Amino acid sequence: MLYVIGTGPGNNQFITKEADEILKNVDSIVCYKGYKEFVEHYGKPIHNTGMTKEIDRVKFALEKAKTENIALVSSGDATIYGMASLAYELNNEYNYDVEVKTVAGLSSANMCSSILGAPLNHDFATISLSDLLTPFEIIMKRILCALEGDFVISLYNPLSTKRKEPFLQTMDFIKSYANDREINYIIGIVKNAGRDTEEFKITTINELMDNLEEFMEYIDMKTTLIIGNTNTKIIDSKMITPRGYFNKYIDNK
Amino acid sequence: MLYVIGTGPGNNQFITKEADEILKNVDSIVCYKGYKEFVEHYGKPIHNTGMTKEIDRVKFALEKAKTENIALVSSGDATIYGMASLAYELNNEYNYDVEVKTVAGLSSANMCSSILGAPLNHDFATISLSDLLTPFEIIMKRILCALEGDFVISLYNPLSTKRKEPFLQTMDFIKSYANDREINYIIGIVKNAGRDTEEFKITTINELMDNLEEFMEYIDMKTTLIIGNTNTKIIDSKMITPRGYFNKYIDNK
Ligand SMILES: C[S@@+](CC[C@H](N)C(=O)[O-])C[C@H]1O[C@@H](n2cnc3c(N)ncnc32)[C@H](O)[C@@H]1O
Ligand SMILES: C[S@@+](CC[C@H](N)C(=O)[O-])C[C@H]1O[C@@H](n2cnc3c(N)ncnc32)[C@H](O)[C@@H]1O
Repeated sequence: MLYVIGTGPGNNQFITKEADEILKNVDSIVCYKGYKEFVEHYGKPIHNTGMTKEIDRVKFALEKAKTENIALVSSGDATIYGMASLAYELNNEYNYDVEVKTVAGLSSANMCSSILGAPLNHDFATISLSDLLTPFEIIMKRILCALEGDFVISLYNPLSTKRKEPFLQTMDFIKSYANDREINYIIGIVKNAGRDTEEFKITTINELMDNLEEFMEYIDMKTTLIIGNTNTKIIDSKMITPRGYFNKYIDNK
Repeated sequence: MLYVIGTGPGNNQFITKEADEILKNVDSIVCYKGYKEFVEHYGKPIHNTGMTKEIDRVKFALEKAKTENIALVSSGDATIYGMASLAYELNNEYNYDVEVKTVAGLSSANMCSSILGAPLNHDFATISLSDLLTPFEIIMKRILCALEGDFVISLYNPLSTKRKEPFLQTMDFIKSYANDREINYIIGIVKNAGRDTEEFKITTINELMDNLEEFMEYIDMKTTLIIGNTNTKIIDSKMITPRGYFNKYIDNK
């Protein structure tokens, strides 16, 4: 049996009881090298070497899962830009004939929303800026559609040391879209959510573009951005997207 | 201090360790009446009567939080169509001067994604069909934008016994959008995720519309729908949206 498990962002406090229980009971754990420290305390054999590529890692886990109960572990939620779909695809393609079960986890966007206040308190779109697996035109189309729909936007995989172009173009595009409409979107930037090194900034698209270099040094692959919609506001230094009760029942009275 | 906490969907297995720890340490709990059974085991005073309206409940919690540590509890994640933003708004408006902290939880869509397989494994939009607080035109605009962007769509609050019109119009709209383009979206419907009564169906927009009455009887306020995008497929009876590794590195070799 193969469990594809997300353990939440950051440290062990953000795992669900279900995932914790399953990890206590599997025979061994397969994970990305950098993730070892978060699962060591289960005292299980951990397989994490020689698997730089996602496909190799998932195939290795499926092979072992023929005879053992294996947990294929990643951070956050196992389906949100995670390995779950690949496990089903490879299981089918190569006839491993293994039972695969996805185990849900707290995703970074939810954690970042709570750190910032409540920016995801209304309809939102979740978009990855990584153009490794998705053509950049599709990413840009989605950014445009999300803005047109006035969705709050969660941006995963914003940039890496080698991949800065999609971020630059996306921010540029959002700024012109906003300026044409005299909007200045509020943006929450959360880094290392749930770890000791957790930090965040709340800014706006104009301020971000005015200080682009500085922000691009700040943002890394452990950062999620939440771009507010036209209703998002700051209350007591928190970033909030109202659900509407207040407007409907109090503000308009 | 006021903690606005989401305890995950369904039963207690889906709570994070962080939320569980906090609930063990607060002085009392404020929640919706129907939610009492899920927090009783903490052995804390529970306030849940005479608060049929969200605003009354949140104000009550803020008032008590002036002198006690209070948990305002709801299911799923506290920001996803939850009470978190309202707590910040009311705290500010009525000068309660309470410290409010959002505590993230597993949201229904993540749980439903894991039950179905991995439909949320690529960019997605989350939309509530409740037109109580959001004008229906905005909901429809968001549905259109989400389809145009080829997002997977998570639909919360699909229908209630009194509110069926938004669901009907949305499904009708998705069907014509799909038929015009010769698409037949795969749809996952999950009911009572994480409870003993959990069940799900995987269907398509055409099949749903051909059996509309039956599906509308099935779907209720404890149901989340996940509408696939044009890449979503069924593998071994699971609903999967590929992230792209398989296509890029195996299928196209
Ligand atoms: C490949 S995705 C995996 C997402 C993960 N499955 C989830 O549900 O959170 C990696 C991206 O998730 C986000 N992320 C992961 N951990 C994070 C953290 N601790 N704080 C903020 N963002 C994080 C970042 O945007 C990062 O680039
Ligand atoms: C007011 S919203 C609250 C959402 C919650 N804060 C969350 O993050 O899941 C209520 C909607 O959440 C979804 N929902 C809540 N509990 C659910 C469950 N156990 N199974 C499926 N959907 C659920 C349904 O769409 C329902 O209409």
